[in-house]
Amino acid sequence: MPVLTPQADDFPRWYQDVVSKAELAENGPVRGTMVIRPYGYGLWERMQAEVDARIKACGAQNAYFPLFIPQSYFQREAEHVEGFSPELAVVTIAGGKELEEPVVVRPTSETVIGEYMAKWVQSYRDLPLLLNQWSNVVRWELRPRIFLRTTEFLWQEGHTAHATSADARAYSERILHEVYEDFMVRVLAMPVVVGLKTVKERFAGAVNSLSCEGMMGDGKALQMGTSHELGQNFARVFEIEFLDAEGTRQTAWTTSWGVSTRMLGGLIMAHGDDDGLRVPPRLAHVQVVVVVVRADDEVIARSRALAQELAAAGVRVHLDERTDISLGRRVTDWELKGIPVRLELGPRDLADGMVTMVRRISREKAPTPLAGVVAAVLGALDTEQDALLDEAIAQRDARIADVDSLEDARAASESGWARVAWDRVGTEGESELATSGVTVRCLTRRDGSVPASQDEADLVAYVARAY
Amino acid sequence: MPVLTPQADDFPRWYQDVVSKAELAENGPVRGTMVIRPYGYGLWERMQAEVDARIKACGAQNAYFPLFIPQSYFQREAEHVEGFSPELAVVTIAGGKELEEPVVVRPTSETVIGEYMAKWVQSYRDLPLLLNQWSNVVRWELRPRIFLRTTEFLWQEGHTAHATSADARAYSERILHEVYEDFMVRVLAMPVVVGLKTVKERFAGAVNSLSCEGMMGDGKALQMGTSHELGQNFARVFEIEFLDAEGTRQTAWTTSWGVSTRMLGGLIMAHGDDDGLRVPPRLAHVQVVVVVVRADDEVIARSRALAQELAAAGVRVHLDERTDISLGRRVTDWELKGIPVRLELGPRDLADGMVTMVRRISREKAPTPLAGVVAAVLGALDTEQDALLDEAIAQRDARIADVDSLEDARAASESGWARVAWDRVGTEGESELATSGVTVRCLTRRDGSVPASQDEADLVAYVARAY
Repeated sequence: MPVLTPQADDFPRWYQDVVSKAELAENGPVRGTMVIRPYGYGLWERMQAEVDARIKACGAQNAYFPLFIPQSYFQREAEHVEGFSPELAVVTIAGGKELEEPVVVRPTSETVIGEYMAKWVQSYRDLPLLLNQWSNVVRWELRPRIFLRTTEFLWQEGHTAHATSADARAYSERILHEVYEDFMVRVLAMPVVVGLKTVKERFAGAVNSLSCEGMMGDGKALQMGTSHELGQNFARVFEIEFLDAEGTRQTAWTTSWGVSTRMLGGLIMAHGDDDGLRVPPRLAHVQVVVVVVRADDEVIARSRALAQELAAAGVRVHLDERTDISLGRRVTDWELKGIPVRLELGPRDLADGMVTMVRRISREKAPTPLAGVVAAVLGALDTEQDALLDEAIAQRDARIADVDSLEDARAASESGWARVAWDRVGTEGESELATSGVTVRCLTRRDGSVPASQDEADLVAYVARAY
Repeated sequence: MPVLTPQADDFPRWYQDVVSKAELAENGPVRGTMVIRPYGYGLWERMQAEVDARIKACGAQNAYFPLFIPQSYFQREAEHVEGFSPELAVVTIAGGKELEEPVVVRPTSETVIGEYMAKWVQSYRDLPLLLNQWSNVVRWELRPRIFLRTTEFLWQEGHTAHATSADARAYSERILHEVYEDFMVRVLAMPVVVGLKTVKERFAGAVNSLSCEGMMGDGKALQMGTSHELGQNFARVFEIEFLDAEGTRQTAWTTSWGVSTRMLGGLIMAHGDDDGLRVPPRLAHVQVVVVVVRADDEVIARSRALAQELAAAGVRVHLDERTDISLGRRVTDWELKGIPVRLELGPRDLADGMVTMVRRISREKAPTPLAGVVAAVLGALDTEQDALLDEAIAQRDARIADVDSLEDARAASESGWARVAWDRVGTEGESELATSGVTVRCLTRRDGSVPASQDEADLVAYVARAY
């Protein structure tokens, strides 16, 4: 009996199985919350490190704003509130007493950050103000699904203020490409489609929402990250104003952008197979596991030395000395967890001066001389990373159908995505598709670049069912 | 007029001034919450990185448990609950409806982590289970003070389960010394006194609480971090049980330990002076600021090159090109922020092939040849780190009075700490001191090591007023 429900039998069930059996996460005690276990959290830490470095390279600085936001803040920006109010968790009792003004547990921090930006921005010299926050947020979910839609999730939210509309727009595009797309393609090995959200799908209060859409193993789409150009909508409400070089009072232009633990769900569903997770080497917090096949003194000593050599070469390595558990069970476990490279060392391998190298992605299994194993591992990590991306690109392209009509777009969405001229869909077609649960994921130009508005001529719409 | 209230005039006022003028943090909109600004958060990120690396070196893994805990969990461990219930924030409304069971915003995660540990621990092979979490927690504070006592704060909380009492005890001591004491002394340059809390002062539910106590600039004490040995108290309540090697069911032994953003308050009050913060070089996220004195093309070019050379040598450097702001104002700002080394470069310096190096801690100011400046800066960072620690040790020792009676201990607490034989104080003396706001901070053996219980003979008590 397979450890996991096969993907072809029941994809959602397979997903839950992987989450649980690879020890990524569990449901929390309060409905819709989750416990992220060490193996899952290790992946999140690596995601954070990679995204954080890219955010800092774009000049933004980290800060921290409070979890609790006065309820009154949510009455200021009507459109924004409408988007969030059904999802709010509200603290009414604290310190043993009923609060005079209830406080909201942040669903996002636009309002409170806007308030402080208004204090900190006085002159054009204070702009651009580029802030980012790593935190938890809470949105009460009716149909929670682990990592994808949880009542509490972890994320980063960037918030920036600029002196001009052009600068704000350029920065939201820079984050989209240099932070999100670059991270997702190069590290996650996910060839996301990057484009503009339609007016119907954009963030409440935004003038433009840009997004990265990932293709999942069942052909559905997952929104992996978004970058919003907010125009002056928030700045007007929160009075983020500055004196320009001529001494004239101006209203700033703002952006916001975020990715979350939802990316863990995307990673699982994009790369997983019937044996479990497959982690791209550049992301993996355990890139290589050295498996001691049998409790033999020489094998143990050589395995430890090997792990040290790999660590010294900068490889993130784990040593599995649990020889009281059968090799088969341990192998199944490491396959489930998707460790890119496994080195199995037993007495016979050692006698031959060899180690067995097993690659999770390409599934190659070959004896490798112990003498040159570090170089071989470094090479394998690179080729496995490339192989995973190539496979994902091929899968994505095979599952995108070029169609000409709404009817064909809907049909193609049963098993993949449809690519269709946006003027064949339009706002009306979009509403019609929505009645069967199909959405326009994003719009791009013919050359794949991101349009400035959905009114540009000759745009392409990516249409799909989505998580 | 000085930028800050002098310490000698009003120490609490000086503290608030530094927090605000060095742009470390501000009060949040909900009473008792705080906004940590980029300069303050940068210090916290460095604290996290240093503490996290040490935690991982002790074998613990990071995980994440939910913010929301069912109220019922808080009724299980009576003693623990008593400690926290007046401080709880409770969500009663979510998703637009009254909740059937209100949920508590975590004040600490013992209860929820205990619940999951019980699921994950089955056999002695699963032990020790070493978990850590970086998160926010909420405790409704009646008398909030920024960083020191805030309604929401950021921290790490470690939770571990062990097969034996001895193993749990050894681990709580290992965390105390190898993570907390090592970090505080070597990185924060704070010569904390490390000892055992009295029964009166220990954590609700612990059998032993160990702590690191820091000396502040006004002679008061600040508890900088704690490591608790919880015996089987929590394990019994949450049924963390395992089968030992003989197949007998046993109850586990647990520990918990944490440090928080409170350390930022300790850093300010331990090292700050009338000109502002003084950041130890090893902690600093900005170790060196290169100040362009005047807007001159050659000066700007050379300053940029200098910043790049320093960065290439691994120095965390910031380039200040704001020549539209007076040099005096910028210098005041960098002194306020406590940047360890400042390099000022103007046209005259450049003509002489020199740069002016100013050290924040030793206050040395000297022209330095541009040719060897990288090596000079690396040397200065080391000597400034040492100088700060030496100064802190001298200050601490000068402010600790060896006394023989309760009366003298109380008197000494007016301006520093008292060191007194614990058998001169005892539980009764402790209660008497408490009536004048003086507490036993911790107990040590004569040789400075940490005792196993307050009943050991010949212990020393450190007595002080505390934040």
